[in-house]
Amino acid sequence: MTLSALVDQIHQKESFLCIGLDPDPDKLPSHLDGSVESTYTFLKEIIESTKDLCVAYKPNLAFFEAFGSEGWELYEKILSLIPSEHFVIADAKRGDIGNTSKKYASAFFGHPNCDALTIAPYMGSDSVQPFLGNKEKWVILLGLTSNPGSEDFQMKKLANGRYVYEEVLYTAKEWGSPEELMFVIGATHPESFRNIRAILPDHFFLVPGVGAQGGSLAAVCEYGMNDQVGLLVNSSRGILYASKGEDFAEAARAKAKEMQAEMSGIMRGV
Amino acid sequence: MTLSALVDQIHQKESFLCIGLDPDPDKLPSHLDGSVESTYTFLKEIIESTKDLCVAYKPNLAFFEAFGSEGWELYEKILSLIPSEHFVIADAKRGDIGNTSKKYASAFFGHPNCDALTIAPYMGSDSVQPFLGNKEKWVILLGLTSNPGSEDFQMKKLANGRYVYEEVLYTAKEWGSPEELMFVIGATHPESFRNIRAILPDHFFLVPGVGAQGGSLAAVCEYGMNDQVGLLVNSSRGILYASKGEDFAEAARAKAKEMQAEMSGIMRGV
Repeated sequence: MTLSALVDQIHQKESFLCIGLDPDPDKLPSHLDGSVESTYTFLKEIIESTKDLCVAYKPNLAFFEAFGSEGWELYEKILSLIPSEHFVIADAKRGDIGNTSKKYASAFFGHPNCDALTIAPYMGSDSVQPFLGNKEKWVILLGLTSNPGSEDFQMKKLANGRYVYEEVLYTAKEWGSPEELMFVIGATHPESFRNIRAILPDHFFLVPGVGAQGGSLAAVCEYGMNDQVGLLVNSSRGILYASKGEDFAEAARAKAKEMQAEMSGIMRGV
Repeated sequence: MTLSALVDQIHQKESFLCIGLDPDPDKLPSHLDGSVESTYTFLKEIIESTKDLCVAYKPNLAFFEAFGSEGWELYEKILSLIPSEHFVIADAKRGDIGNTSKKYASAFFGHPNCDALTIAPYMGSDSVQPFLGNKEKWVILLGLTSNPGSEDFQMKKLANGRYVYEEVLYTAKEWGSPEELMFVIGATHPESFRNIRAILPDHFFLVPGVGAQGGSLAAVCEYGMNDQVGLLVNSSRGILYASKGEDFAEAARAKAKEMQAEMSGIMRGV
């Protein structure tokens, strides 16, 4: 998907919501048995009931791989279910030496419905480059993540005065344009958004951490938005597991609607 | 596998060789067509012909995932082929927020033949902890990698005087004992091995980068060995693709034998 197609979708739907697909057998509605088949049914209904409210879906590969090879089959089937106007992010946090990253790129971008892949930056340029330059495919590089462990290394100060995550942002923005590269910036660090937006005025941010992890949508938007919106805000558990009952899909829709309405208000400046 | 079982194997075989399984359809012997089936045959023969010379195998998940869900099936079938006395490392470079890392841990450690998983440190403690504390299962954390991109972030100096990779080593050694935690240290930085061994006297290192990437076994051993050997030295392409002909398995054996002989000499102090 191109940047302009994504921005169009955001304006049409008045939504920059990304729904994370983290299917956890322990959390499925009680009438579903947690098998691969019931997980397929669950995700199919979630997608059906939310697709007009969000612009992106983000399957989290860990939750598919936990089923072994059948989980990868499930992942491929789910990709085929998602309408093509949605931006699809394989949340896989890959990254390895050049020849290996090339293989990961073909593994993920080989599927026509997969638009983007999350990538870990630790191994540097040649671990990221093979994912760039693939027409209408995107790299979403970890910048400042939403979890407590982001303090351990990302928030360490370098001798040049930058935090490690800032070094990642400054360095990586030279690798890819805003037409092919986004960054993961966690909603749990709202105080850093103004500074991060100053470093990266034009790149989109994928923002996890709103909801279950405690981040606030309003705080993120206040400093994180740019004139193309520039944000995809993710919610996973808060939407997927809104109800343990047979009404799970309606409950998920209600939660998604609540977020979309808040986003619409923010976009209209209300 | 326990640490003492691994060290026993190393002494019995006079080898600390790890063979990386990176099956690339473009590099297979000419008589194999690059299909999943022929890749299975290829890996089966490689394992058969080298298993007495190495103590570990390291399937590289990217090369399996490039086949899609069939590749994950292939990965599971290959795990079952590897004799149980071998230490098996899933080279997957995973790492995510806590609840997701937990799923990756169950995806990989759920297979009885998988002993270890490579993990990326960027997201910090809660991204690594879920992989620790699993009986006889190991975390192999990226420390200083073998690729050129290791300069970009790992080799940046922190305000506290340490390199970023040193901060990772100092911090992570508090997370796991040498009975459950190893580190990836690339052979392409031999000048750093003395210092790294001083930081981590007792942890094993998984050492990629000997062979195709230019690292030297002698240089690594000079400063990297400890009294339990403390090294698993990996070779992938140099062994797997030693011949494009029907003699590929013998050629692979000859290359593995060459490395094992050099290791044996070093262990005997010859």
